[in-house]
Amino acid sequence: MKELEERIAKDGTVKPGDVLKVDSFLNHQCDITLFDHMGAEWARLFEGKHIDKILTIEASGIGIACIAAQHFNNVPVVFAKKTQSINLDGEQYTTKIYSFTKQKTFDVIVGKRFLTKGEHVLLIDDFLANGKALQGLIEICEQAGVVVEGIGIAIEKGFQGGGDKLRKAGYDLQSLAIVQSMDPEEGKVVFA
Amino acid sequence: MKELEERIAKDGTVKPGDVLKVDSFLNHQCDITLFDHMGAEWARLFEGKHIDKILTIEASGIGIACIAAQHFNNVPVVFAKKTQSINLDGEQYTTKIYSFTKQKTFDVIVGKRFLTKGEHVLLIDDFLANGKALQGLIEICEQAGVVVEGIGIAIEKGFQGGGDKLRKAGYDLQSLAIVQSMDPEEGKVVFA
Repeated sequence: MKELEERIAKDGTVKPGDVLKVDSFLNHQCDITLFDHMGAEWARLFEGKHIDKILTIEASGIGIACIAAQHFNNVPVVFAKKTQSINLDGEQYTTKIYSFTKQKTFDVIVGKRFLTKGEHVLLIDDFLANGKALQGLIEICEQAGVVVEGIGIAIEKGFQGGGDKLRKAGYDLQSLAIVQSMDPEEGKVVFA
Repeated sequence: MKELEERIAKDGTVKPGDVLKVDSFLNHQCDITLFDHMGAEWARLFEGKHIDKILTIEASGIGIACIAAQHFNNVPVVFAKKTQSINLDGEQYTTKIYSFTKQKTFDVIVGKRFLTKGEHVLLIDDFLANGKALQGLIEICEQAGVVVEGIGIAIEKGFQGGGDKLRKAGYDLQSLAIVQSMDPEEGKVVFA
């Protein structure tokens, strides 16, 4: 998606350790118009697929998923939660996800009531690097017996391999921008 | 807002300890159509006010704030983050917020780049009980020198006093549903 690539080139910052900061428009400050265009693009890419629900993970995925849902007939958005809260009672699907960004392992939970066996689910997230977060969401989908109809990612770090693994496993993964390489010295981002 | 009150009455669950669970439509599974109507209602309530930016706090506020922003000329949404992440470098406004729900104190941060002195900010959040989270956001706004033009809340627990304190302090606080009392035995919610 040209608009997203151009925005990354303009406002993204490359940091040592393969870190791409896009917090001025994607995951700290949110550009709502851009989110809307991203939702429209996923709707085009997943056209003809039946989607009952969008599943994402807190926190950065939520805004993107909610705006995207407007392009999928306002289907409900469920976001997986990263810690056990005393407000969450009842039965939950759970898994563990290691975050390289935060350098710790989170318990991730989704209330069983919110995923019904046989539903067709679209996974949405802001970033895909090694794929740990998505693997966690997929594991929860398997526990729930829902069908992962597609995976929509804003920015895939292609050189970290998570995306290719998911494509090989047969998932319909659509990343709006795939970063092939980044150079922290020159601050340059090359897209696939 | 009648639609929200009716939805709380229908799908909310009252639990002991003044807990109102609305996770089937507000803060775990998200009803995008309802969020859109909430955004329209805040636009009506804050009509004539100049809003440069919406500020919320992760995680439950994000989806509501992003959809609401569409009713405020797609202004940017900034969400305060609850833990220090290694992706967040540079200067940040910080404060501490105690969460009764999670029973712990969070460090809350907003990148200084995302709040500019003199900007007019609308605060949005899903719940207002004792007001600790909002006080934290207001503190960050004071550090940044931005004007809190209004506060939009989905559900205020009126009996916990946080809202009245903010109104007395002069804030234009608009809660779409104000719960006056709840009865865990009968599962009944009375609105103000």
